[in-house]
Amino acid sequence: MNAIPEKTIERLSEYRRTLLECHAQGIQHIFSHVLAGIHGITAVQVRRDLMLIGFQSDTKKGYDVEVLIEFISSILDGKNVVNVGVIGMGNLGQALTKYFNGRRSKLRIVASFDVDPQKAGHRIDGIPCYPMADFEELVQKHDIKIVILSSPTSIASQLVVPIINAGIKGVLNFTSMPLNFPRGIFVENYDITTLLEKVAYFVKEAEENSDSSSE
Amino acid sequence: MNAIPEKTIERLSEYRRTLLECHAQGIQHIFSHVLAGIHGITAVQVRRDLMLIGFQSDTKKGYDVEVLIEFISSILDGKNVVNVGVIGMGNLGQALTKYFNGRRSKLRIVASFDVDPQKAGHRIDGIPCYPMADFEELVQKHDIKIVILSSPTSIASQLVVPIINAGIKGVLNFTSMPLNFPRGIFVENYDITTLLEKVAYFVKEAEENSDSSSE
Repeated sequence: MNAIPEKTIERLSEYRRTLLECHAQGIQHIFSHVLAGIHGITAVQVRRDLMLIGFQSDTKKGYDVEVLIEFISSILDGKNVVNVGVIGMGNLGQALTKYFNGRRSKLRIVASFDVDPQKAGHRIDGIPCYPMADFEELVQKHDIKIVILSSPTSIASQLVVPIINAGIKGVLNFTSMPLNFPRGIFVENYDITTLLEKVAYFVKEAEENSDSSSE
Repeated sequence: MNAIPEKTIERLSEYRRTLLECHAQGIQHIFSHVLAGIHGITAVQVRRDLMLIGFQSDTKKGYDVEVLIEFISSILDGKNVVNVGVIGMGNLGQALTKYFNGRRSKLRIVASFDVDPQKAGHRIDGIPCYPMADFEELVQKHDIKIVILSSPTSIASQLVVPIINAGIKGVLNFTSMPLNFPRGIFVENYDITTLLEKVAYFVKEAEENSDSSSE
């Protein structure tokens, strides 16, 4: 199969979450326009995404929820559970850990790391927290492939070399410092400020448009 | 000016953050390919985004950092500070509040809301936390235009009506439940799981490609 665009992957992840919710509520079929409505996009977009991954279905009753969950999972998930580590167990690190624990997922947070001696050496939300000094050793021991960076931005750049040396394959970076890694390490830089600034921009635009139309 | 695409707005927010960092370090000029490299995109993309907002510059020395910060700010920011409220002061709500406090920004978190009596009635990270029951009244009092939803997903759908009634104009929704609002309220639904699933997918793809190329 050809490479699937990043945006499609994001939407597939979102569709699956909605489908799992539908499944939990006993809903067996869903139309593309309903799925689209929930996500604020067009039905054409939903159908295009599913076509791209080769999903075909009898659309008279809509998509079979269970079948579609399995199909999307076959695209997104690997065969095995992927172990994830969290660097930085401040509020954000703890929020993420709590959030993932106990979810039906092929991704599992197995260890966290912090320089704070109040945290390292303890379990936080059921996950052991280790000193950053032991990072490389523990990545191998726990077979960690992905790290979430929720450390203070000021130390983010110091983490690049340990992450490369430890053999990490994917980084989800929540600090405000965009990080670059060599080929073979996928990085997603995501500063949450961006989302808030985006919401603020569209609020401002809507206000300016309504001001000018009322003149 | 025509509507600017959402993705461009996100990138402008990211460029500005990098430019502010450069400015703090005393860097006065930056080339488009350097800015692009930091963000892992092409110089063409950077130039296209800046052209779209009407920014022109002598590119022999690169962009003037300070001028470009001002220009992007003139697009993204309104004239006045925009007040923001946070609903749900668990770990994520607290992480976001800490993160924004003390930043040079036109966005200001002025109040938070929680149903937990241990939180409501107290200040958390310098921000007053109020009971959810007083939400509508306090939105008017504090002139709050945007809310960040960091409540448990299970109660997200109950918040839609209070948010509409209070006259909120923008919602940044971090719960796992995509929410729809009437026209005139901009909503950004963002479940952090999506990002982690995306990283995991591209790690898996890279592994499968390297497996098949080594056969």
